[in-house]
Amino acid sequence: MRNVAIVGVSQTKFGEHWDKSLRDLIVEAGNAAINDSGVERKSIQSLFIGSMSSGRYAGQEHLGALAADSLRLTPIPATRFEGACASGSLAFRNAYIDVASGQHDCAIVLGVEKMTDVKGPEAITSLAAAGDQEWEAAIGLTFAGLYALMARKHMHDFGTTREQMAMVSVNNHKNGVANKYAQFQMPITVQDVLKSSLVADPLRLLDCSPLTDGAAAIVLMSEEKAKRIANPVWILGSGQGSDTLALHDRASFTEMPATVVAAKEALKGADVKISDMSLLEVHDCFSINELIALEDLGFCRKGEGGKFVESGKIAIGGEIPVNTTGGLKAGGHPVGATGVRQIIDIVRQLRGDSCNQLKNPEYGMNLNVGGSGATAVINIFGKEMK
Amino acid sequence: MRNVAIVGVSQTKFGEHWDKSLRDLIVEAGNAAINDSGVERKSIQSLFIGSMSSGRYAGQEHLGALAADSLRLTPIPATRFEGACASGSLAFRNAYIDVASGQHDCAIVLGVEKMTDVKGPEAITSLAAAGDQEWEAAIGLTFAGLYALMARKHMHDFGTTREQMAMVSVNNHKNGVANKYAQFQMPITVQDVLKSSLVADPLRLLDCSPLTDGAAAIVLMSEEKAKRIANPVWILGSGQGSDTLALHDRASFTEMPATVVAAKEALKGADVKISDMSLLEVHDCFSINELIALEDLGFCRKGEGGKFVESGKIAIGGEIPVNTTGGLKAGGHPVGATGVRQIIDIVRQLRGDSCNQLKNPEYGMNLNVGGSGATAVINIFGKEMK
Repeated sequence: MRNVAIVGVSQTKFGEHWDKSLRDLIVEAGNAAINDSGVERKSIQSLFIGSMSSGRYAGQEHLGALAADSLRLTPIPATRFEGACASGSLAFRNAYIDVASGQHDCAIVLGVEKMTDVKGPEAITSLAAAGDQEWEAAIGLTFAGLYALMARKHMHDFGTTREQMAMVSVNNHKNGVANKYAQFQMPITVQDVLKSSLVADPLRLLDCSPLTDGAAAIVLMSEEKAKRIANPVWILGSGQGSDTLALHDRASFTEMPATVVAAKEALKGADVKISDMSLLEVHDCFSINELIALEDLGFCRKGEGGKFVESGKIAIGGEIPVNTTGGLKAGGHPVGATGVRQIIDIVRQLRGDSCNQLKNPEYGMNLNVGGSGATAVINIFGKEMK
Repeated sequence: MRNVAIVGVSQTKFGEHWDKSLRDLIVEAGNAAINDSGVERKSIQSLFIGSMSSGRYAGQEHLGALAADSLRLTPIPATRFEGACASGSLAFRNAYIDVASGQHDCAIVLGVEKMTDVKGPEAITSLAAAGDQEWEAAIGLTFAGLYALMARKHMHDFGTTREQMAMVSVNNHKNGVANKYAQFQMPITVQDVLKSSLVADPLRLLDCSPLTDGAAAIVLMSEEKAKRIANPVWILGSGQGSDTLALHDRASFTEMPATVVAAKEALKGADVKISDMSLLEVHDCFSINELIALEDLGFCRKGEGGKFVESGKIAIGGEIPVNTTGGLKAGGHPVGATGVRQIIDIVRQLRGDSCNQLKNPEYGMNLNVGGSGATAVINIFGKEMK
């Protein structure tokens, strides 16, 4: 397996794009990433795109061909990947393997979702398709409902407080203010979260990531070709795990074994320790999920995620800055694009051209979770190749 | 890249399974393929599943996790692939690369679609999502409509007759009679086709593959492990191409450049000639597509597909037996399962345990087409490894 670098990145503004189609978003992000890389279009040999539910949201499947066509990249192989909210990272991970294994020397990864063209109930029903249709969605369990069960159990078992969960959203919104691509560039307070509308007890509106339109794109290259490119960021490791689709089939509501499996594989591949990370992008689809992620990744013991967040260690300047550009909560969550966007934000931090730029970060990790934890993908990045 | 073998295959009966869920079909095909391989469940290290529109047909996305969960394979990496009607072959091709590149030693591939639980118009609308939503589906162009345009142009340019197209369906139905997994085990005549209901002029009902429920599964293994398995079939090459999503953007309505690109890559990888093939599985979603495929693969010159079929060369015992178990037309077309089913039928012929068994076939090829030709995947198989 060869070393692989990220040589170009771009994302659209995340938000409500009523004036742009699914195709428009793909074209905007894809062309900008190609321009950012400086790579000639004819050098791109394969295409990988992640999208969860374009069939339901936009009446359009077959996104691999759509993207290759719209970006004038035909006849290269072009494939769509789906793993609920982890779709973008699945596309990325397979592109990494494609280049690392020598199938191709240069690949483009895209992630996209256009969610705001359907009515609210249809958006919620479509998202529920990430869980178990027969055993969860069919009885009315929404995605907020699933994460509310996790939050309630975490509070019950470990004494996690409502305020601690709110602090996750507060940190993400604080970081999103300077991010021009974020859906919400506004700070919020713990009181704002606690006073926001109840969605699924104990989760409130400001615990929940929004419905979002957006696309993101990355250009990858093999070591020998990337060396000629200025400021590449290196992919050091990747891991993927699965778990039961339905939450009630798990041994625990407060941990995600798929994350543990994916982290172990990624860290082994990268030959680094979790404590080596300079920053994290974790999947804060609901505030409780960021707490669970910090515990499952080993930044604190199980049950101590609330205290860890309260201690301020996840802030910029803290022990392990998390979601330095706003995460899913403030940045927005166009489902299929989220994993790709997480990686882009790590790349920008490692290149040194991010908003809220950290001082000389060396390693970054993204955790992208599908559904209520049935899929987890983790990738590790570094300024220097292995 | 290592040699990779197919060591186990299975499919459900294709047809209308109103008493079985999407999950039931996955479990039935998956468990049967594992049993067919004799491989222990714990040896399977990765999962690949193809499905086009489970979100629309069954309200269920996130099929990688669903399959890993239902087949008791968690926490292995489990990923869904989508490329319209080529979804199954995309899953297969990526599993092949996964094992060939040394990521894993043993993988399972699944393909599934559960299409008959929705009403007719919704089924047609969902299928149209394989084409261009903005430029084709939105103006009312159905999939039969797209292929009707190709058929009309082929008749106009090359003098292809209605009877010649009907002979494609007649051959497929003849081959399907002995196939216990086929949706339709009945012979039809040219007159039956010509008298069947008009769907999209000039295509009639018996030119069109049906809506189908079904699943198919394959177990793959690396060379060193597969040597211990009885009667493996070897994957010799694989190719994938893309083209414009919309038909009207192509230079020609009567050829599919994605097929040509995919065939070139697969033949080069396998180091064989197209004339070495002992049998073909081609994508006869509509009768005209089988003619176009035979031309694009080089079995006859462009425009001579009709005469080639009329000559009887595609029959069992002919020069190049095509769709020896009934193809999509008689066998059924559960979209995401079709590519996997094509491969299974080649494997059975090469192993020597197929219905309509050929005498000592050496090489087989499947062509799986997505949409109106915007994706094409071709795989080549042999009795002996490279």
